[in-house]
Amino acid sequence: MADTFFQSLFTSIADGGRDLISRNLRRTERDPADHVIGLCRALVSSHGEASGAALAMATLDAYRGLSAEERARVFHRLVAEFCADEAAVVTAYHAYRADPSPATLVALVEAAEPPRRELLGRLNIAPGGTADLVRMRGEVLKLLPAEDDLTALDSDLQHLFVSWFNRGFLSLERIDWHTAAAVLEKLIAYEAVHEIDGWEDLRRRLAADRRCFAFFHPALPDEPLIFVQVALVRSIPDRVQPLLDRSAPVFDVKQADTAVFFSISNCQPGLRSISFGNFLIKQVAADLQAELPNLKTFVTLSPIPGFSRWLHGVAQTNGDGELHDLLADLDGLADADWQEAERTKALEEPLTQLAAWYLVREKKGTMPLDPVARFHLGNGARLERINWRGDVSAKGLRHGHGLMVNYLYRLDQVERNHEAFVNDKKVVASRAVDQLVKASPWPGKETGKAAANATPLPAV
Amino acid sequence: MADTFFQSLFTSIADGGRDLISRNLRRTERDPADHVIGLCRALVSSHGEASGAALAMATLDAYRGLSAEERARVFHRLVAEFCADEAAVVTAYHAYRADPSPATLVALVEAAEPPRRELLGRLNIAPGGTADLVRMRGEVLKLLPAEDDLTALDSDLQHLFVSWFNRGFLSLERIDWHTAAAVLEKLIAYEAVHEIDGWEDLRRRLAADRRCFAFFHPALPDEPLIFVQVALVRSIPDRVQPLLDRSAPVFDVKQADTAVFFSISNCQPGLRSISFGNFLIKQVAADLQAELPNLKTFVTLSPIPGFSRWLHGVAQTNGDGELHDLLADLDGLADADWQEAERTKALEEPLTQLAAWYLVREKKGTMPLDPVARFHLGNGARLERINWRGDVSAKGLRHGHGLMVNYLYRLDQVERNHEAFVNDKKVVASRAVDQLVKASPWPGKETGKAAANATPLPAV
Amino acid sequence: MADTFFQSLFTSIADGGRDLISRNLRRTERDPADHVIGLCRALVSSHGEASGAALAMATLDAYRGLSAEERARVFHRLVAEFCADEAAVVTAYHAYRADPSPATLVALVEAAEPPRRELLGRLNIAPGGTADLVRMRGEVLKLLPAEDDLTALDSDLQHLFVSWFNRGFLSLERIDWHTAAAVLEKLIAYEAVHEIDGWEDLRRRLAADRRCFAFFHPALPDEPLIFVQVALVRSIPDRVQPLLDRSAPVFDVKQADTAVFFSISNCQPGLRSISFGNFLIKQVAADLQAELPNLKTFVTLSPIPGFSRWLHGVAQTNGDGELHDLLADLDGLADADWQEAERTKALEEPLTQLAAWYLVREKKGTMPLDPVARFHLGNGARLERINWRGDVSAKGLRHGHGLMVNYLYRLDQVERNHEAFVNDKKVVASRAVDQLVKASPWPGKETGKAAANATPLPAV
Amino acid sequence: MADTFFQSLFTSIADGGRDLISRNLRRTERDPADHVIGLCRALVSSHGEASGAALAMATLDAYRGLSAEERARVFHRLVAEFCADEAAVVTAYHAYRADPSPATLVALVEAAEPPRRELLGRLNIAPGGTADLVRMRGEVLKLLPAEDDLTALDSDLQHLFVSWFNRGFLSLERIDWHTAAAVLEKLIAYEAVHEIDGWEDLRRRLAADRRCFAFFHPALPDEPLIFVQVALVRSIPDRVQPLLDRSAPVFDVKQADTAVFFSISNCQPGLRSISFGNFLIKQVAADLQAELPNLKTFVTLSPIPGFSRWLHGVAQTNGDGELHDLLADLDGLADADWQEAERTKALEEPLTQLAAWYLVREKKGTMPLDPVARFHLGNGARLERINWRGDVSAKGLRHGHGLMVNYLYRLDQVERNHEAFVNDKKVVASRAVDQLVKASPWPGKETGKAAANATPLPAV
Repeated sequence: MADTFFQSLFTSIADGGRDLISRNLRRTERDPADHVIGLCRALVSSHGEASGAALAMATLDAYRGLSAEERARVFHRLVAEFCADEAAVVTAYHAYRADPSPATLVALVEAAEPPRRELLGRLNIAPGGTADLVRMRGEVLKLLPAEDDLTALDSDLQHLFVSWFNRGFLSLERIDWHTAAAVLEKLIAYEAVHEIDGWEDLRRRLAADRRCFAFFHPALPDEPLIFVQVALVRSIPDRVQPLLDRSAPVFDVKQADTAVFFSISNCQPGLRSISFGNFLIKQVAADLQAELPNLKTFVTLSPIPGFSRWLHGVAQTNGDGELHDLLADLDGLADADWQEAERTKALEEPLTQLAAWYLVREKKGTMPLDPVARFHLGNGARLERINWRGDVSAKGLRHGHGLMVNYLYRLDQVERNHEAFVNDKKVVASRAVDQLVKASPWPGKETGKAAANATPLPAV
Repeated sequence: MADTFFQSLFTSIADGGRDLISRNLRRTERDPADHVIGLCRALVSSHGEASGAALAMATLDAYRGLSAEERARVFHRLVAEFCADEAAVVTAYHAYRADPSPATLVALVEAAEPPRRELLGRLNIAPGGTADLVRMRGEVLKLLPAEDDLTALDSDLQHLFVSWFNRGFLSLERIDWHTAAAVLEKLIAYEAVHEIDGWEDLRRRLAADRRCFAFFHPALPDEPLIFVQVALVRSIPDRVQPLLDRSAPVFDVKQADTAVFFSISNCQPGLRSISFGNFLIKQVAADLQAELPNLKTFVTLSPIPGFSRWLHGVAQTNGDGELHDLLADLDGLADADWQEAERTKALEEPLTQLAAWYLVREKKGTMPLDPVARFHLGNGARLERINWRGDVSAKGLRHGHGLMVNYLYRLDQVERNHEAFVNDKKVVASRAVDQLVKASPWPGKETGKAAANATPLPAV
Repeated sequence: MADTFFQSLFTSIADGGRDLISRNLRRTERDPADHVIGLCRALVSSHGEASGAALAMATLDAYRGLSAEERARVFHRLVAEFCADEAAVVTAYHAYRADPSPATLVALVEAAEPPRRELLGRLNIAPGGTADLVRMRGEVLKLLPAEDDLTALDSDLQHLFVSWFNRGFLSLERIDWHTAAAVLEKLIAYEAVHEIDGWEDLRRRLAADRRCFAFFHPALPDEPLIFVQVALVRSIPDRVQPLLDRSAPVFDVKQADTAVFFSISNCQPGLRSISFGNFLIKQVAADLQAELPNLKTFVTLSPIPGFSRWLHGVAQTNGDGELHDLLADLDGLADADWQEAERTKALEEPLTQLAAWYLVREKKGTMPLDPVARFHLGNGARLERINWRGDVSAKGLRHGHGLMVNYLYRLDQVERNHEAFVNDKKVVASRAVDQLVKASPWPGKETGKAAANATPLPAV
Repeated sequence: MADTFFQSLFTSIADGGRDLISRNLRRTERDPADHVIGLCRALVSSHGEASGAALAMATLDAYRGLSAEERARVFHRLVAEFCADEAAVVTAYHAYRADPSPATLVALVEAAEPPRRELLGRLNIAPGGTADLVRMRGEVLKLLPAEDDLTALDSDLQHLFVSWFNRGFLSLERIDWHTAAAVLEKLIAYEAVHEIDGWEDLRRRLAADRRCFAFFHPALPDEPLIFVQVALVRSIPDRVQPLLDRSAPVFDVKQADTAVFFSISNCQPGLRSISFGNFLIKQVAADLQAELPNLKTFVTLSPIPGFSRWLHGVAQTNGDGELHDLLADLDGLADADWQEAERTKALEEPLTQLAAWYLVREKKGTMPLDPVARFHLGNGARLERINWRGDVSAKGLRHGHGLMVNYLYRLDQVERNHEAFVNDKKVVASRAVDQLVKASPWPGKETGKAAANATPLPAV
């Protein structure tokens, strides 16, 4: 609608760039990164206030045209050149020390806050700006371990996103076959736990006995931030393959007593470590309970993504013969062997006990080593059951030797469990799981150094 | 929808408050402000992460029940008790000075940022939280000049709101007779320039030859943040009463060549100094041009709210006889006299010239003294025309001696005007206005000290 | 959106009218009714198929410009000139008689159906056409008793509307303070039972302890067809004034056990005798029960609109002394006297008994004489209670001597009651009401001829 | 929402069926078709008025459970048993003949109209009823040529649908990648002209240089009634394959001057011969012109579905050698040969001339033999150009020997063309096409008897 006016304003800025912006621009014209930095300077100046969206549009437009290498250059210059003024920081600090009041502290924060944050806020004014900034952080994060000055830019973006993506601004929306294709295709693209194999597979996942919910932000209407898939069933399931079977008959939800969260996927790499999953699970549980009062149990069917890696690590460090034999047996099995229960029977007891040990006892710092366990236990769930041959897909076998876990969300215990988890570092588990831990013959006490990097995204 | 679950969670938190929260609560139970502060402590702790929305709800619920006096007590304690750790600030500062890098600076900002901000962010998670926080700042601002430690809390809230109410998150919506009554009644309540006298008056203001647009934030769906009223007419109008006449026939908009912004009102005291007006006018102009390509002129019909006050101030300091006589003549006129052009004719020339002087030459610092002039000129508009007997309502006579101003928004000059205004402190005016300034016999050069406090909200 | 194209098409038809339509038009040009009839002819011809909406628009546009008298002329000509071909009817009839099959019968219907119906259907194609046709029937109905050839046109319109306004095409929508003002003002205009006195009164009627629902048709988006107002209360109310009190505190709906239908108003005179009320009440009851499971009782608080008229009629025909005395007492009371219970006490027993008799025994044909009783009893409700001083407004006193009735909708009895009502002509009433009937000393058996015309619109 | 209430009502009807309905039901219980017919009887009785939607739901629910064979039985009984009363028809006819007025004619129509229509209208009240009735007609149409008593039922349904699906009740909606998957999958299923090969193909068809519009009825929200696909291009295209190429780059629509309607598909077999296409094309043209003022030309790229059949028919009847040789040449070409222009070059002139002849001269009655030509010419389009190798897909070769046609919609000529077509039976063609007709050496004057059955659904 606003096209005409903004188009003209945009053009007038593009044209007038020579006059208006050149004062701020070192004239090396040939480097498009320089051009973007020049526009950024204009945007943080008072000039940016008047031209508003038009200048922000011009800047993002130029930025979008940059190559990856040019963008990296822009990132480094944003860090180096859009800093707080050191002298002002020093002055504000001394004023604070002379009179350490809330007001002088606020003044210090303001002096120390980099103008980069103001710049990023103004970029957001342009249509589509939020999406660009989220993508920008995704790119920064990729460069980050290597080019560590970018930590400052990452920190600014994260600071903004924590504020912008406050749970209070997100809407929970049900996704089903009436949802726009533009959103649905994102599910196919982003599903991180159990891959969705095209539109027909998706269709089954959105059938009447399934639920899918996602958080959306108003500025990113087609982009789910995180979504969860739920199966409505009778009693707690121990295997995921039946839930994923696209030819399975649709269950009558009026008969369902259990909601199974079998997949939860973050969608935006640029929002890493801005956590929505805790809110999502509890809100979805609330909504489902309101819709279907017969539901009594809210539970996950979750992978153990770090189990296999940990087990091999342990086996490597410990010269233990039994464990070696077990792993040799495991490695001797083809994926296809797992399709028949008989072939793997002998492994059930030791592996299940080991998994219980891994989940309950192995830590990274004071937290569970397994990222999925860490997520659900931190939310106040209880480690309910470990399921033999829960996921016999290639992926399930590779990461968790086919084992899956049910984490149980009981409303009246979530608070208490969380308290125990945070304050007493206690993993709340069912009696059955506790017994598995006790029965575990391996791996003794001195493990824990085997801890590998946890995968970043918790999956159900 | 989510009622059941959250209700229970909420209840369990309220009940369990004794156990869970008492660790954080000094037990003076009888003071509800203490109770709120105790809940706030729980909310910023890790505990707040798990209970999420429920604890935020409980806190806001308790807060809403407080008296004004108790709330003030909460405000002061938030300032005093939710501060950054001084030692951590000192450490971070020294690390920064030792190695003044972007990263150490970010660390300093993080150390110095008060946990109050985190707390306010978590309160926002509760349903309706954003509205509560905006109201909270409204209350803080009322206490502020007197109780100046609250500046820190105001600053935190403003910091959040600048981020949350970023233009990129606002939607511009047309308001007409199809809009919800819950929104329309806000227009009646908030209209600050030309009062709306009930529903029938409102109906005329929303007729086919009028436009009304407002910015909305997704978290405040029934609350316009700012709205503007536009009349579609033929040629630039010099009087506002015909535009407000509720029995005036509806003009055929296809014949209109001019869009007149005749009222712009901020609605949320809690969002003071978070400015949307600049964006609003330009976006509305853009939308109108797209809808009605015949529109050629975008102009305001604006009051001169500070004129009368300034003029009386000048007359008081300057013993000038002519000015005294003029004011005596003015004060001798009843409001009713202004309804007839004849009675006031003699005043037209001197008053119009004085108004031109006031608008163009009188400054507060380097900016125009008149708040409405400051707003539109800062947006890049041109001071186009001063209209004798533009508003002969009691209010118009009281503040501006009946004079009104047209500020002209010309797309191709907005940028240049703004530059001149900001960089060269130049008020861009039409030739006619410039000549009025030159002809102004009074008040000489040495005024400007008469500057009173500018009214905070720019009105068209 | 489609403006440009249709505008042009419209213009080309208007311009080209001379060439294209003149073949069909007798050239008396000066009579605009002739012009409309000419356009109607073009529209039913094959020509109408091609020009589609444009020709329908042109016709309705011309029609809208007619005076009431010209419109009446158009109506009569539509009846006289857009008839079925008599010869074709005769032929079809004989074919049917020769071979009385479903197919020959269909052929007879098709031959006998007037082309007027086709014409009216084509007029509906124009934007706003449905609204015009509904208004048209409203005008026809006003002329109807006098100009009885218009019965044919009324019959055609009714035939169409029965089809178009099939319940399957209506949407039930809740109306509250978030509804568009353009709809809300219709409530104020159309409320037929207890007048709404402006926007503030309306606001109370839409508060949290009230519900308002209406049926809408997709082609009349701003026009409620019928709406019902419901109060959520504790136990069955016997007086309407407290429900209408705009300063009454808002009741907590979680405490409510009873939904009281206290007003139901038809909105469109042009849809007379196309009945929605039965559906509306049952659907609203269903929706309320789903929203508020605590609701146990669904009941009306209804006027007895024909009571006073009947009673005076009876008194006139019957020279009965007691009844005359009663009426003399009644007529001696000022409206204000009814505000105090004491003043009217003596009348309670006889009047209540008479009302019970009137409602249960007095018939028009086999149906209750009172239109409101007829409506609710026909829907399967039970006559539950007669309330003394139920409505002491001037209107309530005038029509029903202040008495009001509760009709009870019990889900499990609606069917049975309806059967008894239709098949056995039985009025299902509570024991208490039945006893009142028995106790009624008057008016004996031979009344019933007093039956006046029932008012057309049932009100709750 | 209304579940609880209706569920109970539904149950009470189902349970109470024995009592309430058995009076109407001959007790052969074992035949579910009998059961449905019994419910239908109850529904047309006064009983149906009270139970409303619940009884309609029960009836449709029972109907849905029937086998195809049982349904056929129900159809025949509806025809045989829900007829008008013959005696009443006779009486009404004689009253009409005695006094042939509009009123007596209306009375005759009412007497002759079968109660089946009332029944069908009441079935529509049930949720989903409209969809069921549309499907029902689809099934009736399949049985129809054989079981010709069903013509009466078809006629009733068609009569209802003409009324219900009046253009005034349809909404034109743009379909794009933001449309619900539940609607998009219908496009894949229903596309009748150029098959859509899955979701990726669909995605390209909905890209920024394509438009897709459909008519929807409010009672069938997920069901497009008819949709059209448009390509925005520069100049009139002569080949369809580039338009269907899913890897073609997306064209900048601001450069487009031509909108090409390249596919139009009816979606609902049950709505056969209720025509929307004429409206759709004109409305879409109007909307596109409003959106993209640069568009100058609105044209189709259409198949000639009957060409090949006609040509072979002619060849069979006419012993003409040249034609035989031509067909022999044609039949000697593999589909693959058409991919290279060279291989088919010799055929271009004769085939194009023959196609021109076929389109312009060959009639069925007074109308063009080719169904697509009949549709567009009847809409007032002009036969603009015949394109050699316009569609070299297997289907295009089979039906039209690869030829395609552009029909041109010129706003200012649509009316005149339509008049010429209807009144003078004239095919309006461009000069170029007229010359092809004249040049056509074959097939002489005396053809026309070769006319085969035209395919029922016009495709662009």
